[in-house]
Amino acid sequence: MNIVALAGGVGGAKLAQGLMLAPSPLQGVSRPPKMRTGEGELPSPVTSFRDGGRVGGLTIIVNTGDDFEWHGLHVSPDLDTVTYTLGGLANSQTGWGVAGDTFEALGALRRLGAEAWFNIGDRDLATHVYRTSLLRQGKTLTEATQAITQALGIQATLLPMTDDRFRTMVETDQGTLEFQDYFVQQRWQPVIRHIHFDGVETARATPQVITALQQADAIIIAPSNPFVSVDPILKVTPTPTLPSHDGGGCKGGGRPIAAVSPIVGGQALKGPAAKMFAELGWEPSAYAVAQHYHGLVTHFVLDRIDADQEGWIQALGMQTLVTDTIMQSVEDRKRLAAEVVEFVKRDA
Amino acid sequence: MNIVALAGGVGGAKLAQGLMLAPSPLQGVSRPPKMRTGEGELPSPVTSFRDGGRVGGLTIIVNTGDDFEWHGLHVSPDLDTVTYTLGGLANSQTGWGVAGDTFEALGALRRLGAEAWFNIGDRDLATHVYRTSLLRQGKTLTEATQAITQALGIQATLLPMTDDRFRTMVETDQGTLEFQDYFVQQRWQPVIRHIHFDGVETARATPQVITALQQADAIIIAPSNPFVSVDPILKVTPTPTLPSHDGGGCKGGGRPIAAVSPIVGGQALKGPAAKMFAELGWEPSAYAVAQHYHGLVTHFVLDRIDADQEGWIQALGMQTLVTDTIMQSVEDRKRLAAEVVEFVKRDA
Repeated sequence: MNIVALAGGVGGAKLAQGLMLAPSPLQGVSRPPKMRTGEGELPSPVTSFRDGGRVGGLTIIVNTGDDFEWHGLHVSPDLDTVTYTLGGLANSQTGWGVAGDTFEALGALRRLGAEAWFNIGDRDLATHVYRTSLLRQGKTLTEATQAITQALGIQATLLPMTDDRFRTMVETDQGTLEFQDYFVQQRWQPVIRHIHFDGVETARATPQVITALQQADAIIIAPSNPFVSVDPILKVTPTPTLPSHDGGGCKGGGRPIAAVSPIVGGQALKGPAAKMFAELGWEPSAYAVAQHYHGLVTHFVLDRIDADQEGWIQALGMQTLVTDTIMQSVEDRKRLAAEVVEFVKRDA
Repeated sequence: MNIVALAGGVGGAKLAQGLMLAPSPLQGVSRPPKMRTGEGELPSPVTSFRDGGRVGGLTIIVNTGDDFEWHGLHVSPDLDTVTYTLGGLANSQTGWGVAGDTFEALGALRRLGAEAWFNIGDRDLATHVYRTSLLRQGKTLTEATQAITQALGIQATLLPMTDDRFRTMVETDQGTLEFQDYFVQQRWQPVIRHIHFDGVETARATPQVITALQQADAIIIAPSNPFVSVDPILKVTPTPTLPSHDGGGCKGGGRPIAAVSPIVGGQALKGPAAKMFAELGWEPSAYAVAQHYHGLVTHFVLDRIDADQEGWIQALGMQTLVTDTIMQSVEDRKRLAAEVVEFVKRDA
C-alpha cells in the first residue's frame, strides 16, 4: 500500500513519524537498498511494507510556502521540521530545530550587527549551508532534500511540493508580511485579512510529487494548518492527480483522501490555525476544517472532544473516524497513524 | 604619520595588532568618529595619532590569494585572522579562528556527508555567512570587510588587496593545488615546484588600496610568507604606488618600505615559508628574504639570531634593524611595532 501524506511543520512531522514507525497494519517493513535516482525520477520508496501481499511506501509531500532566504541561505522550515523529526533529531520541546543545538553562530551574527530574529542553531545552520550549496551547484530542492534525508538515514521519501519559488504572503492589519516575518518576528499577532501566494501562477508540483500522488493508494492530510501549510500544496498540485476528485464519498470510485483535524476543542494544538479561522470569518472547529476541505476529502479524523460535530461532517459526504488525535509521545503518533491507515484502507 | 602594513595571516596579524596598540611613537591616539564611506572612497582612518603635529592612521592591506569557496560561502582566511586578532577574538593557540569557538555546524555537515576538512567554528561561520550575504547583495569585499571590522570595534582600516577574484595556486609534485587544499588538507607536505596566481591578469588593487599607498608615509611588510602572502599583494599593486621604487636606499628620495623577516634562524616561525624557500632553490634565511624583496624594500628588520647576515643585507642597499622579532605576547608585538615605526620614521 502506497501512502502519501501532505504535511506542514510540527503537526505534519508528528503524524509522518507515526506513519513511518507505525505497527500493524504497516508491520513487516522490508527496506530496499538505498539508491540514487536520476532527475525527474521518483526516488524509490525507502520505507516499504507488505500489506496484503503488496509492497508499498511512505512519501511525505511537504509545504515550501514558508521557505525564505536567511543571509543568502535557503531555509525550508517545514522540510527541516519533518526531516529532523523523522531523523530523530528534533527538539521535542520547541517542535522546531535540532535537540541540544547551540546558538554560537547566531550570537556572532548579532555581534556583527546582522539581522538575527530567526532562531537558527549551529547544527541547523549546517543544513541550510549544505542545502544552499547543493542548490547553487544546480541541484533541485528535491535532490537536496533527498541527499539530506538519505544522509540522516530516514526511511521515508520526503518531497518538497515544488522546486519552484512559491511564497506564502500574509495580508494583515499591519501590512503584507512574508510568512516567517508574520509567524516568527511578529509572533503571529497581526490580524489576518487575506492570504496569497507569490509564485502560484508559475510554480509547479514536481514530477516526483505527481508520480507519488498517481501511485498513492491513499492520501492523508496531516493535522497541519489548512491555510498556510496544506493549501500551498494543494495550490501547486494539478487537480487530476488528487485521487478523490471524481470519487465523491469514495464508495467505489476514486481513492481515499483523509484529513486529520488540526483544530481540537476549538483550539489549534500549535500555532495560529484557530486564530486564522476566526480572523477569516469562521468559528474554529473540526467542522470548519471539514468545510474547508469539502469536495476534496473523503475521510475525516476528528478528536473525541469534538464528537458532537461528527454528524455535521458526515453530512458533508465524508466518512468519519473519532479518536484521540493529540500526539504527545511517539507512541501516540504511531497509534494515531495506524488508526488512520486502517480507516482509509477499507476504501483504498 | 600614515602607516600602511602589508599582511598575510598569523604573522601579519600579530604585527598589525602591535601597530594598532603600539606605545610611543604612536602615543596620543586621537580617534575620529566612525563614519560610513561611499563606494571607492577611502574609509577615513579610524586609528589616528598625532606625530609631530600630523594626524595619521593605520591601514592594513591583506592578502586575499588564500580566499576560497566553502559550501558556497566566501571564506577569506587572512582577512579573518587579522580581523579576529585586532578584534581581540583570535584563538592564540592555533593562530586561526575564534577563541573558544565550537564546531557544532562542522560536525553536522560531516553527518550530512558534506566535505568538512576545513575547520570552521560556529562563530567563525557567522563571519562567512554574513560576508557572503553582503557580497551577494552587491557589496564589495572591501565594504563587507569594513562592515565586519567596524561592528567589532577595530580601530584600524583593513583592506583586502583586491575585490576581484585572485587565487594562489601551488604547483607541487602532487599536481596543482588551490592554496587551502595545499595548506590545510595536504598540511603543506607536497613539494612545491612553482606558484602561480589565477586571476593575476585581471585582478586590480582597489581604489582604497591605491589611495592608502599613495598617502602612506611608510609601508611595512609584515613577517608573512613572501611567496604566498606578500607577493600576491605586490602582484596586484601598480608599481608607481609603491613609494620606494625610485627612492633607492631612500636617503632623500622616495618613502621608506620596510620588511620584517619571517625567517628567523633559518626557520619559519609558522607555516611553510622555510620549506618553500628550500624547495624553490634558496637556503632559507633572513638574507634570502631580503634578496626576495631586493629593489623594493629600503629598510630590513632581522632577528638578533641572524645578526651575522646584517652586512650582506646592507650590501643589497637596505638599512637594517637588528632586534628581537619573535612576537609571543601582545607586549612583544607592541614593542616590535614601535621599533619598526621608529626605524622607518627617520626616512618618512
